[in-house]
Amino acid sequence: MAVIAFIGLGQMGSPMAGNLLKQGHKLHVFDINQGAIARLVEKGAQAATSPAAATEGAEFVITMLPNGDLVRSVLFGEQGVCQSLSPQALVIDMSTIHPLQTDQLIAAMSEKGFSMMDVPVGRTSDHAVAGTLLLLAGGTSAQIERATPVLMAMGNELIPAGGPGMGIRVKLINNYMSIALNALSAEAAVLCEALGLSFDVALKVMNGTPAGKGHFTTTWPNKVLKGDVSPAFMIDLAHKDLGIALDVANQLHVPMPLGAASREVYNQARASGRGREDWTALLEQVRNSAGLAMKQKM
Amino acid sequence: MAVIAFIGLGQMGSPMAGNLLKQGHKLHVFDINQGAIARLVEKGAQAATSPAAATEGAEFVITMLPNGDLVRSVLFGEQGVCQSLSPQALVIDMSTIHPLQTDQLIAAMSEKGFSMMDVPVGRTSDHAVAGTLLLLAGGTSAQIERATPVLMAMGNELIPAGGPGMGIRVKLINNYMSIALNALSAEAAVLCEALGLSFDVALKVMNGTPAGKGHFTTTWPNKVLKGDVSPAFMIDLAHKDLGIALDVANQLHVPMPLGAASREVYNQARASGRGREDWTALLEQVRNSAGLAMKQKM
Amino acid sequence: MAVIAFIGLGQMGSPMAGNLLKQGHKLHVFDINQGAIARLVEKGAQAATSPAAATEGAEFVITMLPNGDLVRSVLFGEQGVCQSLSPQALVIDMSTIHPLQTDQLIAAMSEKGFSMMDVPVGRTSDHAVAGTLLLLAGGTSAQIERATPVLMAMGNELIPAGGPGMGIRVKLINNYMSIALNALSAEAAVLCEALGLSFDVALKVMNGTPAGKGHFTTTWPNKVLKGDVSPAFMIDLAHKDLGIALDVANQLHVPMPLGAASREVYNQARASGRGREDWTALLEQVRNSAGLAMKQKM
Amino acid sequence: MAVIAFIGLGQMGSPMAGNLLKQGHKLHVFDINQGAIARLVEKGAQAATSPAAATEGAEFVITMLPNGDLVRSVLFGEQGVCQSLSPQALVIDMSTIHPLQTDQLIAAMSEKGFSMMDVPVGRTSDHAVAGTLLLLAGGTSAQIERATPVLMAMGNELIPAGGPGMGIRVKLINNYMSIALNALSAEAAVLCEALGLSFDVALKVMNGTPAGKGHFTTTWPNKVLKGDVSPAFMIDLAHKDLGIALDVANQLHVPMPLGAASREVYNQARASGRGREDWTALLEQVRNSAGLAMKQKM
Repeated sequence: MAVIAFIGLGQMGSPMAGNLLKQGHKLHVFDINQGAIARLVEKGAQAATSPAAATEGAEFVITMLPNGDLVRSVLFGEQGVCQSLSPQALVIDMSTIHPLQTDQLIAAMSEKGFSMMDVPVGRTSDHAVAGTLLLLAGGTSAQIERATPVLMAMGNELIPAGGPGMGIRVKLINNYMSIALNALSAEAAVLCEALGLSFDVALKVMNGTPAGKGHFTTTWPNKVLKGDVSPAFMIDLAHKDLGIALDVANQLHVPMPLGAASREVYNQARASGRGREDWTALLEQVRNSAGLAMKQKM
Repeated sequence: MAVIAFIGLGQMGSPMAGNLLKQGHKLHVFDINQGAIARLVEKGAQAATSPAAATEGAEFVITMLPNGDLVRSVLFGEQGVCQSLSPQALVIDMSTIHPLQTDQLIAAMSEKGFSMMDVPVGRTSDHAVAGTLLLLAGGTSAQIERATPVLMAMGNELIPAGGPGMGIRVKLINNYMSIALNALSAEAAVLCEALGLSFDVALKVMNGTPAGKGHFTTTWPNKVLKGDVSPAFMIDLAHKDLGIALDVANQLHVPMPLGAASREVYNQARASGRGREDWTALLEQVRNSAGLAMKQKM
Repeated sequence: MAVIAFIGLGQMGSPMAGNLLKQGHKLHVFDINQGAIARLVEKGAQAATSPAAATEGAEFVITMLPNGDLVRSVLFGEQGVCQSLSPQALVIDMSTIHPLQTDQLIAAMSEKGFSMMDVPVGRTSDHAVAGTLLLLAGGTSAQIERATPVLMAMGNELIPAGGPGMGIRVKLINNYMSIALNALSAEAAVLCEALGLSFDVALKVMNGTPAGKGHFTTTWPNKVLKGDVSPAFMIDLAHKDLGIALDVANQLHVPMPLGAASREVYNQARASGRGREDWTALLEQVRNSAGLAMKQKM
Repeated sequence: MAVIAFIGLGQMGSPMAGNLLKQGHKLHVFDINQGAIARLVEKGAQAATSPAAATEGAEFVITMLPNGDLVRSVLFGEQGVCQSLSPQALVIDMSTIHPLQTDQLIAAMSEKGFSMMDVPVGRTSDHAVAGTLLLLAGGTSAQIERATPVLMAMGNELIPAGGPGMGIRVKLINNYMSIALNALSAEAAVLCEALGLSFDVALKVMNGTPAGKGHFTTTWPNKVLKGDVSPAFMIDLAHKDLGIALDVANQLHVPMPLGAASREVYNQARASGRGREDWTALLEQVRNSAGLAMKQKM
């Protein structure tokens, strides 16, 4: 069992710390909320009066904080972690922060001779309580191997995301996709309602197509991801269908800003000469728009 | 076995007609392409010189045409279907056209005392050949019941979509969602590449979350679709995460027009006082924007 | 003075016809609204029972109709203009319709040996009454020269827009720009209000800059339109300022979908390597997105 | 003549400081760039080794820095302005920074008993050299009165923008409008080119309409700004025209993301029951989307 400093005892951090205690780890806990500290002391943790004090003698330092400026301050501020951190210890930031700030923090720690990795979590506070979080681990193989027994006290699935900084990156991508998809789904559902169509019927159909299953595991793997853009369904036709949907939506007064933006992306793909390519070639189109044309493909 | 007029022998129509022949139906076929007619005559169909001629004596008239103006012309034009259609026959439009035009056509047929339904198909031309199309049936129960034996010669799954006009509606919604989702997926994948993150890792994570599985069967059923918008994940936080993703994307030169449009939808939801509601409440927000606030919920 | 068939006596057409009568022209008028015909007959016009009847003996045929399908039907339908049109007459369509439909109509007339031009109007129905409309004339020099005396009875400014079809094109561009600009202006004004800034102060400042005066006559002429994209104000900085504005707007709950879309256009310009070019180089960027890179510059 | 500390001697700051010297003011200058300091010392300025040193004995402290974090650090950091600032002095921040940060800085200075105003500038570095900048003055009447003689050494037009923080606000609005308008203008110009229409003709027309002159001083003052939304040009028609423009653009492969976003704003206005209101009522629509419906109008 390990000696662990745990800093940040909020809605997620408190149950995560509790699960570490249950597994028999020795915890030094710190938060600005004294009540949160007290509740963990009852469960066997040792209270600390500063990040530096919590870090004293710890093999692992875990931070679970609301934003990157706080992580920076906890690490590098007065009475911060670096004041008493052993060069043999491993710092694990589990907060959800800006990925480019994660990079800066890891680099700054590394300059001081300290080892740091990022392991943000997926799922909800209920899973934090149950110890069944999804662990998105950014770190070297050695870091991940070393941290795994500790991390698995808090979650039940660990995905190695690549080197340091990759944990927070995969969390960002996942959140981006699910949050924007929520807005797109709302447009489709409201158009459905405006058309007088049963949503249950729409769901039944969409559950069997990329509309419901997504493209990542259906249309893309055998086409654009293999470099094959011969048309199963042409960009020209997809563009035409989007135009019909937007026309209907505009007749029925259903605002569809994401749909409208999509149509212009397909429009641009056609302007680039991709009209008769497969619709999955839109990936290549967006890569080009991002200036990635010259790089190696994924 | 039935006597069927089949009008429109293109990439989809030809194999569909072929499958009807295989099942033993008697077919009168018409197209402007004489070669297409000849190939079906070889398989046992009877050639017709006009839609009216094909319709003579038919119990079913199936149209599979590239656009709604052609369907109109085939039905109502000189030498059109209506010239020789029996009031006992059933017209089945399987084309993919504008839904509001479908409504007009069905209403115009009805005024003349004719029965018409819409059954556009899902899946690809390979499935048309194999007789495994998805059949999206818009019609009365009686129409659907009557048409089912004929339709099932061409597909292996029939989804009753509601009354006349609902088949084409559900096809529109499904296409809208899948086509726009393709554009959104491309943004996420390109941001992933620009961040130096392995796409395989991103997929592994997204396949376990709404990012990959969609919201229709994950987050929505127990929240907004039940009228519960207490926050599992707040709109304020979703908005914040979108802002971070867009900030990163703009630093890395990845254009994300759908993401940018999404953020303004969440922004508007917050302006409407929904910041502390669950992110699935975005559905209600979009309903309001479409002027549906006063109607019954779905 | 000329003999003129005038077809379409709506809110704009009626006063336009009235002004032709005042100048002493002889008018044959047709509309489906008998009251509108009657009111012009009182002023000296001769009633016609069909477009063909109105066209009988006319040197000019003017159409002022709500959409292109009606123009087509008036020209080519039963009892249409073509039934009695003299090959020496000139048809002037003053309706606002789809430019590509204008092209088709002019081409179809030309095939039949008829001369047709497009002269949509600018300004309002008040100007139609006063005879001070803006005339956007698409036609050959000969057509424009011939039509000018007739047209100037209805307006006080005639802009030759180029050959046939160019009148309706310039109207489209002008409407596009002014209608979308209205939406953008609303975003700026609402952000102003949300910031607690006096709108009068904002106006005073914007009236002296491209924000109020536009770019066409201020920043563009000496930069991108001359092929000079050396930076007076860099795209990188414009992109940064947009980011600040959107950040403020999102903090204050002001949805700015046009601003958000703009930022992604600048983002794409940076991805294309234009970050250190002048902001007016965005024109070149948009040209490239439209696949116009290889053409001659404007 | 006044004793002035001038901090920030970049492309704008250096000539501004030079013009203050020419008017006979006594300058203490500081920058991290020693060369910039040296060039001003040659012109009569006195070099300082820190912001605090420059501030010693100064009646005015002018900051002209690249971002808000630097302004904060120059004011509140070690050897910062506050170390030696007299409570009688006036601090004038002329930098272009985030407005909400300006508010924080002014509030923090006020808590310490110091007087601070924001006067960002308009126009270019050429105008900085010529002393003809536009001065956007945010401050109390007393602050503005006191600062005017000093400011007018650097510019030739001073616009009082309201109280502290309003100078930076009006700069933000102006920049937002002009930068987004540049993107919109590019869409219109490229559509013009794709339509084969002369840009000179389009300019000639637009220069006489809101397309070129903007709405602030043309359509708005007599309609929505007076509370009159009776239609001179209906939102329904504006929406229809946008639809035609987008349809043409999509046929011609001209991506128009701002136009597409605009159409959805008009779409939403129609959904809110404004279809038959004047197009200027879009301002009210956007106010509502921003949650401003209940507030006093502008």
